[in-house]
Amino acid sequence: MLLHAIYLVAIVAEAMSGAIIGMRRGMDLFGICLIGTVTALGGGSIRDVLLGHYPLSWIAHPQYLLFTIGAAIVTALVARQLHHLRKVFLLVDGLGLVTFTVLGCDIARSTGAMSIGIHPGIAVMAGMITGVFGGLLRDVLCNEVPLVMRHELYATVSLVTGALYMGLLWLHVDAAIAALVAVAIGFAFRVLAMRFHWRLPGFSGEGIRGIE
Amino acid sequence: MLLHAIYLVAIVAEAMSGAIIGMRRGMDLFGICLIGTVTALGGGSIRDVLLGHYPLSWIAHPQYLLFTIGAAIVTALVARQLHHLRKVFLLVDGLGLVTFTVLGCDIARSTGAMSIGIHPGIAVMAGMITGVFGGLLRDVLCNEVPLVMRHELYATVSLVTGALYMGLLWLHVDAAIAALVAVAIGFAFRVLAMRFHWRLPGFSGEGIRGIE
Amino acid sequence: MLLHAIYLVAIVAEAMSGAIIGMRRGMDLFGICLIGTVTALGGGSIRDVLLGHYPLSWIAHPQYLLFTIGAAIVTALVARQLHHLRKVFLLVDGLGLVTFTVLGCDIARSTGAMSIGIHPGIAVMAGMITGVFGGLLRDVLCNEVPLVMRHELYATVSLVTGALYMGLLWLHVDAAIAALVAVAIGFAFRVLAMRFHWRLPGFSGEGIRGIE
Repeated sequence: MLLHAIYLVAIVAEAMSGAIIGMRRGMDLFGICLIGTVTALGGGSIRDVLLGHYPLSWIAHPQYLLFTIGAAIVTALVARQLHHLRKVFLLVDGLGLVTFTVLGCDIARSTGAMSIGIHPGIAVMAGMITGVFGGLLRDVLCNEVPLVMRHELYATVSLVTGALYMGLLWLHVDAAIAALVAVAIGFAFRVLAMRFHWRLPGFSGEGIRGIE
Repeated sequence: MLLHAIYLVAIVAEAMSGAIIGMRRGMDLFGICLIGTVTALGGGSIRDVLLGHYPLSWIAHPQYLLFTIGAAIVTALVARQLHHLRKVFLLVDGLGLVTFTVLGCDIARSTGAMSIGIHPGIAVMAGMITGVFGGLLRDVLCNEVPLVMRHELYATVSLVTGALYMGLLWLHVDAAIAALVAVAIGFAFRVLAMRFHWRLPGFSGEGIRGIE
Repeated sequence: MLLHAIYLVAIVAEAMSGAIIGMRRGMDLFGICLIGTVTALGGGSIRDVLLGHYPLSWIAHPQYLLFTIGAAIVTALVARQLHHLRKVFLLVDGLGLVTFTVLGCDIARSTGAMSIGIHPGIAVMAGMITGVFGGLLRDVLCNEVPLVMRHELYATVSLVTGALYMGLLWLHVDAAIAALVAVAIGFAFRVLAMRFHWRLPGFSGEGIRGIE
């Protein structure tokens, strides 16, 4: 229940992040609503399509679209003031990332129960796809090299959260407790990573000759 | 039946629009056939994958591929003359947009009858996805910020057409009559929007500071 | 069995090609693993989603992910030396292309046997999607106009291989023999195309006026 409430706050935050990037690219109101919705619900949609998990969440619960479209429109109206809320926004976005991840793992587990057995590693992947592929779609539509491929602790936080959650379930920890522990530790990891600018090794690309 | 005939004309027109943009990006013959096909059939494919509606239309009816590939090849041969047909082309494209939309709503309704109940708002979304996501895929493959996100009355026409069609069905109007009325009014709306350069509010992007 | 062994070598080669392009775009370690995996497994995933063929290969066989992620990490470590292996790499990549194609045709045939009859032309398309769409996704994520749309003999080789394989099956040739013949002839075609720089007609894009 708590996870579900956090989920609703998170899709609003994701929709707002998409809307802001859309505005910076000169999109109109329709484009802003679309990019906000894709950012918020795209990760979960890709996960469901890859797993064959139908119906998709926003088709079963059309009210999610009202949340994302509403968030995009509000963002378009107040965008010039939003940078004052930058820190709040980053915290909500980080909370959303870990919540999306845990919910994505759960969807993969339930799909596995329905048909084939899903490998725990695939459940962790499904969680990560839920957490980060919305932002990846946003960047592809805005014609940019996806940010998530260049600032990786975002994805790493998702991976760690999913692995922790699946590990706790494997140890027969109660699902609700496992979810809360994974969300809490994942969120703390994300906050620390932002605070201390942790990052994975990157590559300058210089001196790399093509092989194709 | 009439809708189906318009549909075939529309996929030819969409394939031609894709082929022309591909030629301007320096693609070769294969790329032009692929971009034409994706533009014409991509919107319906995304809709079917999101709904879990299998088999996809072009897999059940492979002859659609002959239409789109043929249209792309013809376009490659006569592209230098095509701008004389600009007005005819825009009219066919507008007719295709509203036809795609109504057919997309119908697919969503029939999917809903098969398994879960589909919300009427989701059927309108499915119609809009059918109408505008082919062009969106085209622009992503051609490495551009999708046009549909910047010139929005295209998408708005699709939304109005789908909402009108679903509204008439809700009022128990016969499906064939509802389809014709929605296509006629949607098409008139599109023609007027082009004639008088109607557009939604856009955003300059200046002064928008990031929050990520 | 032989095809399966070639398949594993091919996904490693594809993952390496993706990783190298990711490094040139300044991605970090996570981005490089993701782009390598998408390049290697993306074509088959798109094919399976379009056909409604579940579960996807990497969900049923999670060890494929270890191959692609391992290949990407190794590539990141030794990238500066890889251009010495350029010719070996191109040969493995060409062998992978025709192997992916034949395996993609087979998946489409088996899907057809399960539910609806799949048209042989659609099986050829499914083979081509398997062969070339991984590289297409790689280029979209790296924000480039897909290479496959500009250097088409790559896709043409896939098309010829798939058509040859389906043609041999239609003539009641044993499936294993048909696969080996198609792979051998397709591979020879690819090697000759590279050696003699064969290409399809391209278009300069100059003088093409838009019709939208």
